[in-house]
Amino acid sequence: MQQQPDMMDKLVSLCKRRGIIFQSSEIYGGLAATWDYGPIGAEIKKNLKEAWWRSNVYERDDIEGIEAAILMHPMTWMASGHVSSFEDTLADCKSCKKRFKVENVTGKKCPECGGELTEARQFNLMLKTHLGPIEDEGSLTYLRPETAQGIFVNFQNVVNSMRRKIPFGIAQIGKSFRNEITTRSFTFRSREFEQMEIEYFVKPGTDDEWYHKWVEERFVWYARFGIRKENLRKRQHEKKELAHYAKACTDIEYNFPFGWSELEGIANRTDFDLKQHSRLCGKELDYFDEATKERFIPYVIEPSGGIDRAILAFLFDAYREEEVKGEKRVSLALHKALAPLKAAVLPLLRNRPDLVELAKNIANGLRKGFKVMYDDTASIGRLYRRQDEIGTPYCITVDVDSLSDRKVTVRDRDSMKQDRISVDTVKAYLVDKFKD
Amino acid sequence: MQQQPDMMDKLVSLCKRRGIIFQSSEIYGGLAATWDYGPIGAEIKKNLKEAWWRSNVYERDDIEGIEAAILMHPMTWMASGHVSSFEDTLADCKSCKKRFKVENVTGKKCPECGGELTEARQFNLMLKTHLGPIEDEGSLTYLRPETAQGIFVNFQNVVNSMRRKIPFGIAQIGKSFRNEITTRSFTFRSREFEQMEIEYFVKPGTDDEWYHKWVEERFVWYARFGIRKENLRKRQHEKKELAHYAKACTDIEYNFPFGWSELEGIANRTDFDLKQHSRLCGKELDYFDEATKERFIPYVIEPSGGIDRAILAFLFDAYREEEVKGEKRVSLALHKALAPLKAAVLPLLRNRPDLVELAKNIANGLRKGFKVMYDDTASIGRLYRRQDEIGTPYCITVDVDSLSDRKVTVRDRDSMKQDRISVDTVKAYLVDKFKD
Repeated sequence: MQQQPDMMDKLVSLCKRRGIIFQSSEIYGGLAATWDYGPIGAEIKKNLKEAWWRSNVYERDDIEGIEAAILMHPMTWMASGHVSSFEDTLADCKSCKKRFKVENVTGKKCPECGGELTEARQFNLMLKTHLGPIEDEGSLTYLRPETAQGIFVNFQNVVNSMRRKIPFGIAQIGKSFRNEITTRSFTFRSREFEQMEIEYFVKPGTDDEWYHKWVEERFVWYARFGIRKENLRKRQHEKKELAHYAKACTDIEYNFPFGWSELEGIANRTDFDLKQHSRLCGKELDYFDEATKERFIPYVIEPSGGIDRAILAFLFDAYREEEVKGEKRVSLALHKALAPLKAAVLPLLRNRPDLVELAKNIANGLRKGFKVMYDDTASIGRLYRRQDEIGTPYCITVDVDSLSDRKVTVRDRDSMKQDRISVDTVKAYLVDKFKD
Repeated sequence: MQQQPDMMDKLVSLCKRRGIIFQSSEIYGGLAATWDYGPIGAEIKKNLKEAWWRSNVYERDDIEGIEAAILMHPMTWMASGHVSSFEDTLADCKSCKKRFKVENVTGKKCPECGGELTEARQFNLMLKTHLGPIEDEGSLTYLRPETAQGIFVNFQNVVNSMRRKIPFGIAQIGKSFRNEITTRSFTFRSREFEQMEIEYFVKPGTDDEWYHKWVEERFVWYARFGIRKENLRKRQHEKKELAHYAKACTDIEYNFPFGWSELEGIANRTDFDLKQHSRLCGKELDYFDEATKERFIPYVIEPSGGIDRAILAFLFDAYREEEVKGEKRVSLALHKALAPLKAAVLPLLRNRPDLVELAKNIANGLRKGFKVMYDDTASIGRLYRRQDEIGTPYCITVDVDSLSDRKVTVRDRDSMKQDRISVDTVKAYLVDKFKD
């Protein structure tokens, strides 16, 4: 299904219509390559972050979470190499004045108007800002282009405060910013984006083994939350593709409508970052192994995923179109843990106060613990279609019989099968369905 | 207890020692007025955000959540008034070159060196950045100084996609940035901070009623999650304090060691923001009331809280010092929903492999659903003290008897009472304790 050429248009339209993703600052014509999550999208994003955090920080016993600031000391980006080499090579068209990435241009002529291009020059991708009252070199800093460095600068603080022994990891979720020249494919590449990153610290010599473990672990994670295995693949970087600090890197790719593209990269960053920070800050950022009495700088395996592109992949993979009773049915078969609403409570008739009251009471009884919606603004067929389109796993329908038999109908999103259950057991029914 | 003059030092020290809050980019001497949350602090922050989101977005039926981007179209800040008037008045010292807020200086002499001050001038508090390859006026934008505007520009999108009728609200949690000249009091006022804001849209004429409802609702919320009522107060703004767009504003203040200070402000913003955006974007941002066939621009009640200062208040309020068996005991009596770890599993002897194995198995059995820690790196007395200091509600101790009777001791953080329960019932025991 991902291969349909119009899939992107369909999803963008669904996202806007159903409150999943809006263009940022849309009333002002939008801000290029930034996006806002609407009520439904904000829940999907929140659920995805929670699923990742639970899998890594709660279920494992070897990872600590942190939340570092977006603004960091500018020395951080000298140490990491971003100030000197996080660059695109650009050229301008002398006649139409547009700017292009040199790698996207063949020859020396403008791809849009055919004009002559200037000499190529380097352009740093970090967004700059100034802290404090004076705008000069001394106050210059950057919006972080990756969350990883917030972990490296806190390595010693975490080891000391949490008494951690190697191997262990530090996980972080947060916004990063890149002044991308070429942005594309909806939320796939945007200037403001959110990352989910782990830096996993290991003893040098054990790094290859951990690298392979993490590639496998992260691949399985996407499948665990519902992406079909045939739409996932691993792609190992060739030597010439590797960043200067990396010993190895594998991308987990998803089969997007615009082609196989990276969801997450798992890199062996060696001891590059800790060594660099140690050099620039003048402090030893090494680790003392009490068992062997050795002192060393740990190697680092980094599983680094993009949250926005993961959401995009989960949405594409969950998108279903089928014909039901002669009508087109669109649904999002999202994993229950990611579904934005857990249930919708729908009265069959909205002009019957007793029926509406019962339905509202059922919805209110579920609000502690579940994100639910009460909706009576259309006919039941239309209400079902709305919930299908945003991936609500269960629709609970209250009909006239419910008033006498105190039973409601629960409809399953994927099978469309209906269970008739007692009003008093609705919560227990959902608790059971969501227990995994 | 909040009134102790050394409380601030005690808390800052605890935060660093126990992985709650670190100075940002500390290895480089820190970045002024930005802070990183360590493993324990990141959990407290996550729990606080979850508590707020659940209270407002899940438990109520009249609020939708969104997540707008930090980077917004610059017209946003013209409409809101931030470009023209979000300013401090500053003066420089001609001899020592330091800069001061004029409101903090009496007379025309430098408060530090006694030198002469320059004329006062205006200084905008928004952090600037440039998007795209050219740094000019056309690419200038700002890091949002408040999350509120991300809600206003999405008002129509939310009404349309979610079919919402007034009164209803939109909630958002996210980072904001202000180029504060005077920063102070640990995380209370920082340049990068996180907000939890609701814009609640009502029919003009019902705004006073909703304003009072929200003041009460938000006051009660802080008490619900454990802040003692005697440390909370409401302070209504006088007319001259009000922002130009506000009809009324009440601060919820906490009795910090540095004095009563604002946790959250509840403002009646009238129709100012929607009107301004409508004017600048050229689109009608009004609302059509189908029942009365009236068309109007809604009034807005805004409960706007600071997450970082709320964390600070929860920490101060939870801080306990007492003497137990001749020793000082420090504990954080945090509300269970906010506690960073829900339980710690502690073996009494770490050199008994069978005992360690049992303890690890118990911890692993709890990891699905609970954030727990296994710790065997010290004597039991010391392990208890560590957990008390980070507010862990339950310590589960595995002793030699546990191997034969399959029972463990559960110690309550606040009462220090101990329950002896079966290994098989530990999870059910915790589920019950955390069920509210």
